[in-house]
Amino acid sequence: MKALEPLLEWLSIPSVSTDPARREEVRRAALWLEERLKALGFRTELHDTPLHPILYAERLVREGAPTVLVYGHYDVQPPDPLELWESPPFSPAVREGRVYARGASDDKGQLFAHVAALEGLEAEVNVKFLVEGEEEIGSPNLLPFVRAHREKLLADVALISDGAMFAPGVPTLTYGLRGLCYLEVRLQGAKRDLHSGAFGGVAPNPIQALGWILARLKDERTGKILIPGFYERVQPVPEEEKALWPKLSEEALKGELGVEVLPGEEGFSPLERLWARPTLDPNGVFGGYQGEGSKTVIPMEAGLKLSMRLVPDQDPEEVAQLAEAYLKEVCPPGYRLRVQRLHGGRPVLTDPHSPPMRLMAQALEEVWGRPPVYTREGGTIPVVAELKEALSAPIVLLGLGLPDDNLHAPNEKLDLVNLERGIAVIRRFYELLGAGRV
Amino acid sequence: MKALEPLLEWLSIPSVSTDPARREEVRRAALWLEERLKALGFRTELHDTPLHPILYAERLVREGAPTVLVYGHYDVQPPDPLELWESPPFSPAVREGRVYARGASDDKGQLFAHVAALEGLEAEVNVKFLVEGEEEIGSPNLLPFVRAHREKLLADVALISDGAMFAPGVPTLTYGLRGLCYLEVRLQGAKRDLHSGAFGGVAPNPIQALGWILARLKDERTGKILIPGFYERVQPVPEEEKALWPKLSEEALKGELGVEVLPGEEGFSPLERLWARPTLDPNGVFGGYQGEGSKTVIPMEAGLKLSMRLVPDQDPEEVAQLAEAYLKEVCPPGYRLRVQRLHGGRPVLTDPHSPPMRLMAQALEEVWGRPPVYTREGGTIPVVAELKEALSAPIVLLGLGLPDDNLHAPNEKLDLVNLERGIAVIRRFYELLGAGRV
Repeated sequence: MKALEPLLEWLSIPSVSTDPARREEVRRAALWLEERLKALGFRTELHDTPLHPILYAERLVREGAPTVLVYGHYDVQPPDPLELWESPPFSPAVREGRVYARGASDDKGQLFAHVAALEGLEAEVNVKFLVEGEEEIGSPNLLPFVRAHREKLLADVALISDGAMFAPGVPTLTYGLRGLCYLEVRLQGAKRDLHSGAFGGVAPNPIQALGWILARLKDERTGKILIPGFYERVQPVPEEEKALWPKLSEEALKGELGVEVLPGEEGFSPLERLWARPTLDPNGVFGGYQGEGSKTVIPMEAGLKLSMRLVPDQDPEEVAQLAEAYLKEVCPPGYRLRVQRLHGGRPVLTDPHSPPMRLMAQALEEVWGRPPVYTREGGTIPVVAELKEALSAPIVLLGLGLPDDNLHAPNEKLDLVNLERGIAVIRRFYELLGAGRV
Repeated sequence: MKALEPLLEWLSIPSVSTDPARREEVRRAALWLEERLKALGFRTELHDTPLHPILYAERLVREGAPTVLVYGHYDVQPPDPLELWESPPFSPAVREGRVYARGASDDKGQLFAHVAALEGLEAEVNVKFLVEGEEEIGSPNLLPFVRAHREKLLADVALISDGAMFAPGVPTLTYGLRGLCYLEVRLQGAKRDLHSGAFGGVAPNPIQALGWILARLKDERTGKILIPGFYERVQPVPEEEKALWPKLSEEALKGELGVEVLPGEEGFSPLERLWARPTLDPNGVFGGYQGEGSKTVIPMEAGLKLSMRLVPDQDPEEVAQLAEAYLKEVCPPGYRLRVQRLHGGRPVLTDPHSPPMRLMAQALEEVWGRPPVYTREGGTIPVVAELKEALSAPIVLLGLGLPDDNLHAPNEKLDLVNLERGIAVIRRFYELLGAGRV
């Protein structure tokens, strides 16, 4: 495939936005894309921020022509644990019709489909690109940028590919995303590490205390999150919406995860738990001795990375406040608890039947030979809620990945058939849009 | 002090027994001591084991003379977290009358006092040394060695310095040690790391599950360990024994730990909790993302290092079985739990008024100008229970360290006054013993 070679080059740049040591590499990934868009006739602006640059680019063919704003991100998740990758995360490898690399699906590969779709395209459509390098850390600088440059970004539709098809071969349009509230919790006991023999029996143990706190965050039996007020703004899903959802194969999902049960909140189906119910998950835990063998230490400190996925109408700020207050309440006496807010993003629901969604549905059906299914997604794209508000324009979420793409995990991949057909779908969408089908 | 220079040399050898990468260094620490003992007229034997060598040495002056067996260990704990050391752990530094280095107090410094005490000593005492390099990992090879070489090790008293004085300036004899049962627990959920957005709501989260398990191991309110049968063999401390215990300053202890409360088992004094009650403490926890910033992953695995201090008549094997069975019982459905036994050691009580203990009390009083206090200790020296059984001889536990020596923690140190007086006490003990005072 013609598009593949430059994509492999882009994927080889380790643009890990959360890692301060990678800052220059993150910038390099932005510059790479800027050059690529320039070659396609775009006028580009690289906006520096306190962290990673925002790339804005536009190719305006005619005033009054329909205008599309493409959003994507050029940063990627950290690649660890490195030892579980079959090929190195930043040496892209093609095996069995898939490209393996960190960022292959999330989001360089998907965003690249939007770039490749424009080569030689003659549709009468104005195209704008808004590409950030901080999506994986909560888009702290993009959200103010969107507010500050509303006029520049105005468009008839915002087009975003940073998600997954419902299943292989099933074209998919997504109309909902969960939000996110991500905290780091640190718990300190004594003022120094202690010998567990000399002090065991009188010393605070922050690892043990984290256990007590975790058990108070989520009920073991019901899976309910125990933070008071947490569910207050959660909107129930109308039965008629659920009736339109595709059927989830629980057996296939169990097989994919390698589990015999799908644990979660009592009283809701797995699909509803994934799409329309909030979650709480520790994403990391650390404290004390982690090396080989044993060390009889009672550590002075232990910590948690803790995130919550949110659904309409939960608000990340409010949830962070509720969680922080509750964490302090359940922290046992004798420990010092500190909470740091790492990032957040609002949940969003869009209209699945807006005119551009209908147009994209047509493009999908023409290319894949079947109409798309309509889904929500469990993940978060912080800017979507912001764009929806700032542009007052419909949003089209066109996922080109697959559920088994290993996002945020070792061996991330993108199926080349999805890339190829994704490019074709996007081209067809522009043609339909340019021909005045909306 | 004459003894100091060679000790600094020995301390600079990073003999971390738990670290496979340090194996040669561990051996080098054994060879260093062997040379030193040879120079003092000892006949030495270096016994290879599957892991680290055991050094046996003897200097027999006369058949029928009283015989002392000195036990100690030349291995040390891992030095991490390295960034908290004020001077590097294996570059010994002398500051304000203390030597700072990993092993300064535990146990190279204390063992070295026994070597230095023999220089130029003319007492008519046969001396044997039994020195291992695996104390910090539970003495797996020393225990069978003691059983196999009982005849060679026979002595009238076993003399061990691997502990602490009750307080600065307070000469101390110790008559009890806690035992140890150390486990590693690993919990697996899904077969791979998962994106917390794409799978949060249906995915098992082993960090959350570890929290539930930790909360079931120890009661938050009472501090009681909840493993069924755990306390069954625990012997209560006779009131008359408690009456002899020195007074613990709880305020001083709180100051030392930098805490406002001394958490622990309800219904027992801090001193009893330290010396005569069993404990359960997680010593390490790991899982998921631990780097800077955030990563929205649900890890496939999380783990705990978990140890229990034991008191008479608890047995490490039995406790490991009880703990393992209970861990499996409380493990939530959908997780795979594996338990690895890392090491153990039996608790021990010795006679505080045996003839050699009385002789050592006299030596202590002569050197320090006050009689010793009698203590138990919260730590574990696995071989002591074994030696007590194999030799049928009294044990003298002469701690030369201090409670604030930062054992197993950054900035481990030994006060030079303790080293100097320790050497004098040991010399005086040999003189009294050689003069037939027992």
